[in-house]
Amino acid sequence: MNLSTFFDMTYGMFLLGSVKDGKPTGCIVNTAVQISNKPPLLSVSVSHNNYTNSVIKESGLASVNILAQGVSMDVIRTFGFQSGRDTDKFASVPYIQTADGLPVLEDGICGWFECKVRNTVELPEYTLFILEVFECDRLGDRVAPMTYAYYQMVKKGGVPKNAPAHTLPEEEGGRPAGPKYVCSVCGYEYDNYQGPFEFLPPDWKCPRCGAPKSAFVIKT
Amino acid sequence: MNLSTFFDMTYGMFLLGSVKDGKPTGCIVNTAVQISNKPPLLSVSVSHNNYTNSVIKESGLASVNILAQGVSMDVIRTFGFQSGRDTDKFASVPYIQTADGLPVLEDGICGWFECKVRNTVELPEYTLFILEVFECDRLGDRVAPMTYAYYQMVKKGGVPKNAPAHTLPEEEGGRPAGPKYVCSVCGYEYDNYQGPFEFLPPDWKCPRCGAPKSAFVIKT
Repeated sequence: MNLSTFFDMTYGMFLLGSVKDGKPTGCIVNTAVQISNKPPLLSVSVSHNNYTNSVIKESGLASVNILAQGVSMDVIRTFGFQSGRDTDKFASVPYIQTADGLPVLEDGICGWFECKVRNTVELPEYTLFILEVFECDRLGDRVAPMTYAYYQMVKKGGVPKNAPAHTLPEEEGGRPAGPKYVCSVCGYEYDNYQGPFEFLPPDWKCPRCGAPKSAFVIKT
Repeated sequence: MNLSTFFDMTYGMFLLGSVKDGKPTGCIVNTAVQISNKPPLLSVSVSHNNYTNSVIKESGLASVNILAQGVSMDVIRTFGFQSGRDTDKFASVPYIQTADGLPVLEDGICGWFECKVRNTVELPEYTLFILEVFECDRLGDRVAPMTYAYYQMVKKGGVPKNAPAHTLPEEEGGRPAGPKYVCSVCGYEYDNYQGPFEFLPPDWKCPRCGAPKSAFVIKT
């Protein structure tokens, strides 16, 4: 099996929230997907190690916040790389709580869903939650959603240790991969770890000298 | 509920295949997602009305082909808007069959997975298949995966009637939405049906006169 095949799957980025004793908690997931139109259902896979997993099971409730491209990286660092067991993740982030106490971010999102758990499927390391949406809305301003590819390539984000996404060492087909690209102006070598050079957006610039993407050549 | 919130969810595009009596069949889905790393599991939601649904249940096997941005629109039309009950969808498409008979496209894809059904969750109109990957590979050339947003905005694709994705009439918040943009050169009015103007790629051009995206102004 060439496990790097999983790298070409497309995902959004979400803050999955829940509530325990009135106190909100949450984590970053990339696995939320609509699985039914009538009724409106989402599924999301969450590691057994995530505190949010147990809180969703206890409350039977979850919010799904669709992260926007412009979301602060602090939000991803706070919710993706710390545990709600040890930290009040919401201490430094503007949010509101719905009537059910579910957390909804005030900005950095395209929209949000309030959901109740319809059923769960236990997998060896993850729980697949099937969530029924009972309320949802978009923020007033139309902004582009953040994709997992954008997060990895443009925002240079890492992979939380509990994520179901594959990560591989280079020698087993992980990032970096493909040819090396080098800036013909300043000699900066593009670090493929952020994704293949070819997939970078057209307005990407050399992080050292600011030369345009077109100034890069394949290293021979 | 503002059901247009679902429009900001991010998806890839996939050809989901299966096999009956040695004969391959398949359909287009946008709901395939990795839900576990160890073991490698995918989930995918398929309408009860899809012929591929019953064939996967009978065979216990499925292939997931990750469609690339460059995939021919004929592939999407053939597999997304016809039924395998009536048509040999593979008649005009280059493909191979794996040892288990599962169809893998020869081009237009980033990579493919061979899977066996691990379990199924029945929903009112859909089956959620949980698939265990037992073989997978990428094609030699690295190409960008097609996202559902790219398909709708750039390729101007429609939504198959059995898809779990939400579609709404304009008066209920569906596409078209947002301000109207008009070409300042030729007067062409951008049809928001293909997605919000703001999300079109920077190199998008007026389909009538070829003027750049920057030549468009908001219609007052």
